[in-house]
Amino acid sequence: MRIEGAHHRSIGLWEDGWAVKVLDQRLLPWEVRWVRLETLDHACAAIADMWVRGAPLIGITAAYGLALALREDASDAALEAASARLSATRPTAINLRWALDRMRAALDPLAPGLRVAAAYARAGELGDEDEALCAAIGGHGLEVLRTLAATRPPGSVLNILTHCNAGWLATVDWGTALAPIYRAHDAGLKLHVWVDETRPRNQGALLTAFELASHGVPHTVISDNAGGLLMQRGQVDAVIVGTDRVAANGDVCNKVGTYLKALAAHDTGVPFYVALPYSTFDPACPDGASIPIEERSGTEQSTLTGPVLEPDLGLEPGRPPRQATVRLTGSPVANPAFDITPARLISAYITERGVGGLEVLRG
Amino acid sequence: MRIEGAHHRSIGLWEDGWAVKVLDQRLLPWEVRWVRLETLDHACAAIADMWVRGAPLIGITAAYGLALALREDASDAALEAASARLSATRPTAINLRWALDRMRAALDPLAPGLRVAAAYARAGELGDEDEALCAAIGGHGLEVLRTLAATRPPGSVLNILTHCNAGWLATVDWGTALAPIYRAHDAGLKLHVWVDETRPRNQGALLTAFELASHGVPHTVISDNAGGLLMQRGQVDAVIVGTDRVAANGDVCNKVGTYLKALAAHDTGVPFYVALPYSTFDPACPDGASIPIEERSGTEQSTLTGPVLEPDLGLEPGRPPRQATVRLTGSPVANPAFDITPARLISAYITERGVGGLEVLRG
Repeated sequence: MRIEGAHHRSIGLWEDGWAVKVLDQRLLPWEVRWVRLETLDHACAAIADMWVRGAPLIGITAAYGLALALREDASDAALEAASARLSATRPTAINLRWALDRMRAALDPLAPGLRVAAAYARAGELGDEDEALCAAIGGHGLEVLRTLAATRPPGSVLNILTHCNAGWLATVDWGTALAPIYRAHDAGLKLHVWVDETRPRNQGALLTAFELASHGVPHTVISDNAGGLLMQRGQVDAVIVGTDRVAANGDVCNKVGTYLKALAAHDTGVPFYVALPYSTFDPACPDGASIPIEERSGTEQSTLTGPVLEPDLGLEPGRPPRQATVRLTGSPVANPAFDITPARLISAYITERGVGGLEVLRG
Repeated sequence: MRIEGAHHRSIGLWEDGWAVKVLDQRLLPWEVRWVRLETLDHACAAIADMWVRGAPLIGITAAYGLALALREDASDAALEAASARLSATRPTAINLRWALDRMRAALDPLAPGLRVAAAYARAGELGDEDEALCAAIGGHGLEVLRTLAATRPPGSVLNILTHCNAGWLATVDWGTALAPIYRAHDAGLKLHVWVDETRPRNQGALLTAFELASHGVPHTVISDNAGGLLMQRGQVDAVIVGTDRVAANGDVCNKVGTYLKALAAHDTGVPFYVALPYSTFDPACPDGASIPIEERSGTEQSTLTGPVLEPDLGLEPGRPPRQATVRLTGSPVANPAFDITPARLISAYITERGVGGLEVLRG
């Protein structure tokens, strides 16, 4: 996707052809800093410390992390140890294990001398595959938005609401929920995106807003509380969100607060779409109630870090803005990360295979 | 209500019997600073700059502001001018005009020499009246909570969720939505309160959490996104909120995000209560759609001010924490302040007259 007019993927190789290039997403939108990952340690830190986040991108970063590890030692023991370390960086990320399993399937049978080149090749293929999936989701989503736009007066702006970040920063390119928006914007549809701030980590206000601004898509950041009012007023034409896991019955696990937007969309007659690669569908999981909900650190809820506006801390001109961490409350906090949107509230799933109900998931 | 074991009202007189005593609520919960209002200018600043907030408290502050003005000049012209200035401090606050009208009805007929004493007396009566209303709301709400508790296993903790701040800081004492909680806690019911952070001004995380902590009520601050999940999990027994205005058909205007919690409560079978003094019912307003929604400054959404945790700014021990303002997003923002909860989602209204449907409002 575009940053200052240039095309970027969220992960790739530096010009030297071996070091891995990723954005330090913790600094966005305040600073665009591409970093070099040269070792297994770097790759593990990038995942564990959330320089990279988003299930697909974590998987591809782990794949490249394995390639970096093998450059130092390509023995069976080293391959096993590196996989185990990478796998432990984010214990709940399914794509991480999925990517490592696919890497191991390609690498385990090979002689150590052949493994480095094969690892880079396979990681590159997994990245290309992810990009192609997201592009296809975007293509199907574009048709959904075109159809919606055709029901509006000519020249109308289509207002889309999204929650959290399911854009190219979470994948290799395009994203899932944002892919239809980028495709529609590039195709000339007039769009405006309401971006839920997405407390407590503020991925909407920080990452989704950065992506949309970089790509030139008109957008407005709102509190997570505001979406219901906007739908009541007829200021939202569709909601599109991503998902971390879809159960066999179609229930959707996504960033906490998604359920509230789905309820409001249902109550006001606004279509509610979930965009996902087919691999996010988990037929072994019967329903939403069976999905464990991660409880994250209370610090995310009780403190907030950002560039300091006041007081003047004696910043040097031209330097990235100095950050400060402020307290938000002195009371106990809880921080569940996800909620479950029941299948009955979902208008359609948008996958690389098409748009529809459970049949597009069950394939 | 209690702060560090001592009883306080949110407004009163200092020991000298004439200067007005209020909390600078902008500093809460980080610092409890009682300030002296000695002049009309002070009272206007306290309202306009939001040292005091909450419709009932604004009204009583204006009433005392008129008394302060009359101490300097009790002529007809001065009375008229002071009323006009106070009335303009917060243009949308209905209670402000209501309190001033009641003061004027008592003061206008009097000779100037009698007005100062009468103004203090009338302001005191209005304050006592507000306290009595809130105590009555609390009493009726206590019965609601007792009834709910009786349906739970003995020894269970009743979990209440609330949004924004409708506590004693917004009134003279007790509050509206929090009055039943204080009464129930004081009566020995085991309670725990889920406190919505209430973006973008964070009145929940700051003010409601401060009130509950000061009074010793167990509570947990959560993101506004989390309430739906908690209800899905059966971790909420009731929702109680306040309101700024109730339309003739029972639609409720309250802090933005209230509608989303009402939808989740309805979807999960959790009772949803609105606590209000009867005077908040506006029979002249046919329905929620007729209520204008205030659009507030985007700065509330795009920046946040709090005590600095990092970096270490060299704070002096024993001094109040140094505050900083940080940026939350670099993108355009919107900040609608209220939304409308349709009457169909409300289990009951709790007023000083009792608990029930529209009949307790229509009285």
